[in-house]
Amino acid sequence: MTSPQRAPGGFPVVGIIGGGQLARMCAAPAAELAITLSVLAEAPDAAAAQVIPSAPVGDYTDVETVRAWARECDVVTFDHEHVPADVLAALAADGVTLHPSPDALHFAQDKLAMRERMTAIGVACPAWAPARTAADVEAFGAEHGWPVIAKTPRGGYDGKGVRVVNRPEDVADWLDLAAQQDGTTGPLADGILLEEKVDFVRELAVLIARSPMGQAAAWPVVETVQTDGICTEVLAPAPGLDPDLAAVVTEAGLRIAESLSVTGVFAIEMFEVTDPGTGAPAYVVNELAMRPHNSGHWSMDGAVTGQFEQHLRAVLDLPLGSPTPRAPFTVMANVLGGDHPELYPAYRHVMARDPELKVHLYGKGVRPGRKIGHVNLTGTDLADLRERAGHAADYLTGVITE
Amino acid sequence: MTSPQRAPGGFPVVGIIGGGQLARMCAAPAAELAITLSVLAEAPDAAAAQVIPSAPVGDYTDVETVRAWARECDVVTFDHEHVPADVLAALAADGVTLHPSPDALHFAQDKLAMRERMTAIGVACPAWAPARTAADVEAFGAEHGWPVIAKTPRGGYDGKGVRVVNRPEDVADWLDLAAQQDGTTGPLADGILLEEKVDFVRELAVLIARSPMGQAAAWPVVETVQTDGICTEVLAPAPGLDPDLAAVVTEAGLRIAESLSVTGVFAIEMFEVTDPGTGAPAYVVNELAMRPHNSGHWSMDGAVTGQFEQHLRAVLDLPLGSPTPRAPFTVMANVLGGDHPELYPAYRHVMARDPELKVHLYGKGVRPGRKIGHVNLTGTDLADLRERAGHAADYLTGVITE
Repeated sequence: MTSPQRAPGGFPVVGIIGGGQLARMCAAPAAELAITLSVLAEAPDAAAAQVIPSAPVGDYTDVETVRAWARECDVVTFDHEHVPADVLAALAADGVTLHPSPDALHFAQDKLAMRERMTAIGVACPAWAPARTAADVEAFGAEHGWPVIAKTPRGGYDGKGVRVVNRPEDVADWLDLAAQQDGTTGPLADGILLEEKVDFVRELAVLIARSPMGQAAAWPVVETVQTDGICTEVLAPAPGLDPDLAAVVTEAGLRIAESLSVTGVFAIEMFEVTDPGTGAPAYVVNELAMRPHNSGHWSMDGAVTGQFEQHLRAVLDLPLGSPTPRAPFTVMANVLGGDHPELYPAYRHVMARDPELKVHLYGKGVRPGRKIGHVNLTGTDLADLRERAGHAADYLTGVITE
Repeated sequence: MTSPQRAPGGFPVVGIIGGGQLARMCAAPAAELAITLSVLAEAPDAAAAQVIPSAPVGDYTDVETVRAWARECDVVTFDHEHVPADVLAALAADGVTLHPSPDALHFAQDKLAMRERMTAIGVACPAWAPARTAADVEAFGAEHGWPVIAKTPRGGYDGKGVRVVNRPEDVADWLDLAAQQDGTTGPLADGILLEEKVDFVRELAVLIARSPMGQAAAWPVVETVQTDGICTEVLAPAPGLDPDLAAVVTEAGLRIAESLSVTGVFAIEMFEVTDPGTGAPAYVVNELAMRPHNSGHWSMDGAVTGQFEQHLRAVLDLPLGSPTPRAPFTVMANVLGGDHPELYPAYRHVMARDPELKVHLYGKGVRPGRKIGHVNLTGTDLADLRERAGHAADYLTGVITE
C-alpha cells in the first residue's frame, strides 16, 4: 500500500472508509483546501476511486486491512455506517482519531438505541416499542392502530429492513430470527422495532455539522420528496415551513448532535405532522444518518459552505463555514438509473436547455433505480426551479427524451 | 503508462499538458461531471498530480512522450502556453484534437504576431513596432516618448522578458541576440517588440470561453490589481466601470476569440485609459493568455459557472454554462508564498475569523512571492470584501500574524 501524498505545509490526510459517492464528493473541497484524502475502496473502479489518487482496495470488515490502512491517516471518517463494531474498536484501541466516534455511530447503527436516546432527551418520535413475540406486535397494533411499521434495529438501510405490518404474521420470520438471536449480537438480538405509522404532512430533513471542539452549524431545514421510497427531490429551504417549527426542528437537531457527541455532518430525517391537540405544525424524528446525506446535496451549489467541505472541516476540528444559502431557493433532483447506459450524450441536451444547471454524476454504472447523480438549480422561483431540475434529471435518466 | 480510468456511460478523457494549479483546479468540475482527466505532469508531486489519479510524469518538450500520452485522450488542452510548435504539430498530425489549436496558440506564443493581428482586426493596442537595431529603438522612443516597453516576442511570461527602456543601450543585449537569431526560429528572430508605455487608469481583464461549435460566453469585465508586477487582487465586476466601455471591451474580446478561433477559456489583459481626444474612458489590449487565468479565479465561487468547468465544457464542445455572477461582487486575493512554510495552522485563524471565506490552495511548497493559492469572498459590500479577503491572504502568507 503506497502512502497518500501530503501537500507541503503541514496538511493532514483524511481517511474515508468506503468509496461511494459521498467519499467521491469530498474530493473537490479536499483539493481546494489541499487536504489529502485516502479512501479504503470496495473496488478499483469505485465512485471515489475514480477521482482520488489514494484509494487502495480493501475489505472494511477485515480488522487488519483497516488497521494497516488507517495508520497513514490523521483522521478517519466514513462513506457509510456499516463498519462493524469490532473494526471500530480496534481502530480506537490503536489510537486512530475516528469521526464520528464509535459511541456516536452506535446510535446510527442501532435503531432501538436511537429511539431510546431520542425519547430520553425529549425529542419527538413516533410511538415505538421493541417486540419479541406475536403478542407484542398484536398489543402494539391494538394500541396505536394498524398498520404499524416494523424495522430491523441493525443492518437495515435505504428501505431494506423496513416493513408495513398489518398483522403479526407479516413479521413472523423476523420474530423467529429474533428468538434465535436472543443472547447473541445478531441484528435482531434485541427484538424488532415497532413504530406507529405516522400520518405526515410531508418529510423534512435537518442537516447539521458538529466539530470535536463542540462548534455546530445547521443548514436551513429542507423538504425531501420521496417517490416509491426513494428520495427524488429536495427543496431548500422547505417552502412555507412555519418559522416556529423550523426553529424547534433545528434546536432538536442541535440537541441530538450534542447528546450523541456526533462529529462531522449528520442528517435527521423527520416527518412534519399536525399536532392532534393544537392543530399546530409539529415534527417527529424518522431516521438518523451519521454522515453527509442526500438531503444535503443542494448545499454543494446552494450554500456558502457545502456539506462535503463542512464535513472535512468538522472532522479536522477546523472552524466551520457558513451554511447560509446563496439564493432564496435551491432544488436538488436525484438522477436515477434508467434503461439506457449512455449518459454522456444527454449532456448536450440538458446543458443547452439550461445554462444554470449544475450536474453532479458519480461515475457509477447505470442500473434501474440506482442513484447515479443529481442536479442542482439555485434561484428565486421555486416552481420554475422544480420544473427545470426535474426535466434535467428525467432526461439524464432517460424517462423523457425531448 | 497505465490508461486513465473512464467513467461508465460514454464519458471522455480530457488530457492536460502541464500539472500546475490550472490543471489542478480542473479536478473538481471534472469529478462533478464524471469527466476523466489525464495530466502530463512535470513531477510526481506537481500541484495537479496530487489530486488527479492519472498524472504520468513526462517532458512536454519531448515529441514521443507527448504523442504516447495523448493517445489515451479524447481532447488535449493546456495548463500553460509553452508547448513547442514541433510537439503541437506532431499531435495535430496524429489526429489529436487540440484546444486551443496550434494556430490559435501561435498568437499567445508570439507577441509580435498577436500585435499584428489585433491591429488588423481593429482592436485598440498601445503604439508598437518591431525593432532590430538601436536606431529602431531611438526612433520609437523619439516618436512615442521615453521610457518605452521592450518585450521578447516569444518565451516571455509572468513579467520575464519585459523591460522598461530609457535608451537603446538598455536592450543592447537583446538587439545583439536578435541579430544572431536573424533567419532562425529563435525567440528574437523577428527582433524585439517595442510598445509605448501606457498611462493607464487601472488594469482590466475580460475572460471568455469559446467552443469549437462557435458558442462564446463572457464573464463580466474585472479589475486586476498588481503589486510589484504580480496580480494580487481581482475585483469582479470592475467597480464603477463605464457601461459603454464594458460593452466595448467585451465585444473586443469576443472579436478576438472569433478572429483567432480560440477554443477553451482565454483571458485578455487590458489597460483602462482616458481617450486623449474625448476624455472618455477607453481601453488598450496588454496581453493574451490562452487558457484559464488568474483573473478568472473569482468565478469558482462567484459565478454560476466557474472558469474551470467552463473550460472543460468548451474543449469538449459541450454547451457552455452561464457566466452570471452569483452576487453583486466577488473579491479574489492571491496567496503569495511568505517566510514560513507551515500553511495549515493558519486555517484555524482565517476560517474562524470569516466563515464565508473560500480558500483555494494549490499544494505547492512555499517560496517567497510564489502564487500558492487564493481566497474568494462574495457579497455586496466591496470595501468590506476587500478588507476581509486581503486579511485572509496576508495571514496565510504570513505578512500579518493577528
